[in-house]
Amino acid sequence: QKKTNLSFSNRGKTLEDELNETNEFYLSRSMAVIHKKPVPIQVVNVNYPARSAAVITEAYFRTPSTTDYNGLWKGKYIDFEAKETKSATSFPLQNIHEHQVNHMKSVSKQGGITFFILKFTSLDRYFITPYVFFEKYWERMISGGRKSITLDEVMEMSTEIKPGFNPRLDYLQAVSALAASYETIERQEDV
Amino acid sequence: QKKTNLSFSNRGKTLEDELNETNEFYLSRSMAVIHKKPVPIQVVNVNYPARSAAVITEAYFRTPSTTDYNGLWKGKYIDFEAKETKSATSFPLQNIHEHQVNHMKSVSKQGGITFFILKFTSLDRYFITPYVFFEKYWERMISGGRKSITLDEVMEMSTEIKPGFNPRLDYLQAVSALAASYETIERQEDV
Ligand SMILES: [Mg+2]
Ligand SMILES: [Mg+2]
Repeated sequence: QKKTNLSFSNRGKTLEDELNETNEFYLSRSMAVIHKKPVPIQVVNVNYPARSAAVITEAYFRTPSTTDYNGLWKGKYIDFEAKETKSATSFPLQNIHEHQVNHMKSVSKQGGITFFILKFTSLDRYFITPYVFFEKYWERMISGGRKSITLDEVMEMSTEIKPGFNPRLDYLQAVSALAASYETIERQEDV
Repeated sequence: QKKTNLSFSNRGKTLEDELNETNEFYLSRSMAVIHKKPVPIQVVNVNYPARSAAVITEAYFRTPSTTDYNGLWKGKYIDFEAKETKSATSFPLQNIHEHQVNHMKSVSKQGGITFFILKFTSLDRYFITPYVFFEKYWERMISGGRKSITLDEVMEMSTEIKPGFNPRLDYLQAVSALAASYETIERQEDV
């Protein structure tokens, strides 16, 4: 394979676009089966015009009860939430829902691999942050502490990933390392 | 635990209600983390009234690209599609989408546990049908054969589950047997 010499900086794309492209790449190569879940919407009223598709005429956005993305990689369950911030110094916690954090806790207990993909848009930097390390910063906020995680703290507990061409955001590399570290811990606990 | 002596026949409930109750039960006991995915909807127009929630005023239902339910049980990835039929003699294939079948094939290849939960509402009978056995009936249809699976064929390839009180549809029992049979096959292939 020839490498094309492109600048990979692509600030116009949303993190969601980048992840959808990446997931399509993984699916097409049979590397993983990971999809974004649809946005939960409560439908109140629907019209059924003759000879054309049903039209929803009244509906409301609902708060998601789980994370945005889940799926399967080498038989293992993968579950993550993707968030971007414009801040260059810290990651705000206010747009992470308590339901989502509770869901990640359940996934973690049930043996799944769960993490955040955090994007600092103004820095063009991306981090894979395992839920198990994130937890203490969430608890710090709950107990009255700061409502964000500093960039230094994010760097300290995360794996940084560099955007590329195809796949755009090769997060499975970091996930693979994460899964290996879990297995090491499990083996040690078995002893 | 005392067993209450109730009739568990409950034909008014939809299969979706029964599965949601069951999944809540599993989640509350930390037995599994399995959720129904939201229905995919394409939002075309949204109004933002002052001082109240955003109202979606035009939207359309989209064809799902994956199955309805997925999640995690003892570290393993679980993925299924739930369907009911009023027929007492066969299960029609026309309301299973090709996208969903392709998704299940990908899941199966990636080492996930994937199956249908089929309900014959007029018989009050429920079946767990592994995707690996279902595949040949789908291919029979593709190659011009019948557009349904007979009840006898469903019975032959499935595990029947009886509805109960709590959990309403204890499908993890059947999944557990299915997972064990996969592991046996893998061990044999390793030899
Ligand atoms: Mg999100
Ligand atoms: Mg369905």
